[in-house]
Amino acid sequence: MKKGLFITFEGADGSGKTTQLNKVKTFLENKGYDVVVTREPGALETGKKIREILLHASEPVADRCEMFLFLADRAQHVETFIKPALIEGKIVLCDRHTDSTIAYQGYGRNQDIELLKSLNKIAVNEIVPDLTLLYDVSTKTALARVGSDKDRMESAGIEFHTKVRNGYLELQKENPQRIKLINANNSIETVFEDTKNIIMDLLQKV
Amino acid sequence: MKKGLFITFEGADGSGKTTQLNKVKTFLENKGYDVVVTREPGALETGKKIREILLHASEPVADRCEMFLFLADRAQHVETFIKPALIEGKIVLCDRHTDSTIAYQGYGRNQDIELLKSLNKIAVNEIVPDLTLLYDVSTKTALARVGSDKDRMESAGIEFHTKVRNGYLELQKENPQRIKLINANNSIETVFEDTKNIIMDLLQKV
Repeated sequence: MKKGLFITFEGADGSGKTTQLNKVKTFLENKGYDVVVTREPGALETGKKIREILLHASEPVADRCEMFLFLADRAQHVETFIKPALIEGKIVLCDRHTDSTIAYQGYGRNQDIELLKSLNKIAVNEIVPDLTLLYDVSTKTALARVGSDKDRMESAGIEFHTKVRNGYLELQKENPQRIKLINANNSIETVFEDTKNIIMDLLQKV
Repeated sequence: MKKGLFITFEGADGSGKTTQLNKVKTFLENKGYDVVVTREPGALETGKKIREILLHASEPVADRCEMFLFLADRAQHVETFIKPALIEGKIVLCDRHTDSTIAYQGYGRNQDIELLKSLNKIAVNEIVPDLTLLYDVSTKTALARVGSDKDRMESAGIEFHTKVRNGYLELQKENPQRIKLINANNSIETVFEDTKNIIMDLLQKV
């Protein structure tokens, strides 16, 4: 049923993953592929309204409420956007997906990792990435790159970012076939060479 | 930690459960109890915004998205409203709760009942009703009672309502200690006598 390819881009803010995603888009389009770009959370109308609740709630939002809202956003995004695109044979490039939840909410904020994994599984309803590119960057480099967003990142704390980074690396070890590690401390060009090589490997296999 | 009592009111639209809930409120207040009345879904600000998404989405909402949104509403309601009230020693009367999800989404709409049960468990985070009053009414009587809402109820179909009713009865059989069955085909006064007897039994035990 599914004919397309689902590729997710993961890593810290400042890892350069969004820049790489856009370069991959151009690269694949130049090769004649039908590519769609999307992101989580909040890609669709429903997701935007969900984000609105999280950002502008007049009352404190309980952890479990937040968790279910993110899952609602993901379920809607996968079911009504990603899955139809894959069925049509498109290559879907998605900026952040399930691994972000595990790395940030699970490892970063110490929520129950096994619970998050099983809930993610329900939300995605068997749509799993064919490839996940993990852009690993030192927290120092990430901080230097985020510029005007530095306050937001620093306020979350170096310790938090270290936990998230280690969480991502743990996920990569658990899923070496799906998740490919890329050293994102290098220049944009070098990182894109690594990215391209992995993508071309995947395209040759399918 | 929890000192209050959590009582939920379940049954079909037209079963008279909300009328009974209000009569119980007055009855308990006259006896000097500190009572709060609430409902699901959509009791709080966050819940109202969630309902807004479900009612006025510009795109079709996927089943799993809807399910997670209801769970988000419930998690927020339990954590920020019901639990604090119970800790303060109040009697919380709640119009619809977890059993509605199982009866309507599970039995009525054929969603995975075991999945819904386990997700409900995560959402309520160990806050379970001390008593659930199940107002059982024949679909014919319910339809005759709902009046101006008749179209809405009839449009869902007699078959749907029968499945919901049977689902509720199944839940009662599985949880005979917590869920008490009340014949809601009778007059408001008779139903209230039955309700009062069950509530007084509970108050004597605690």
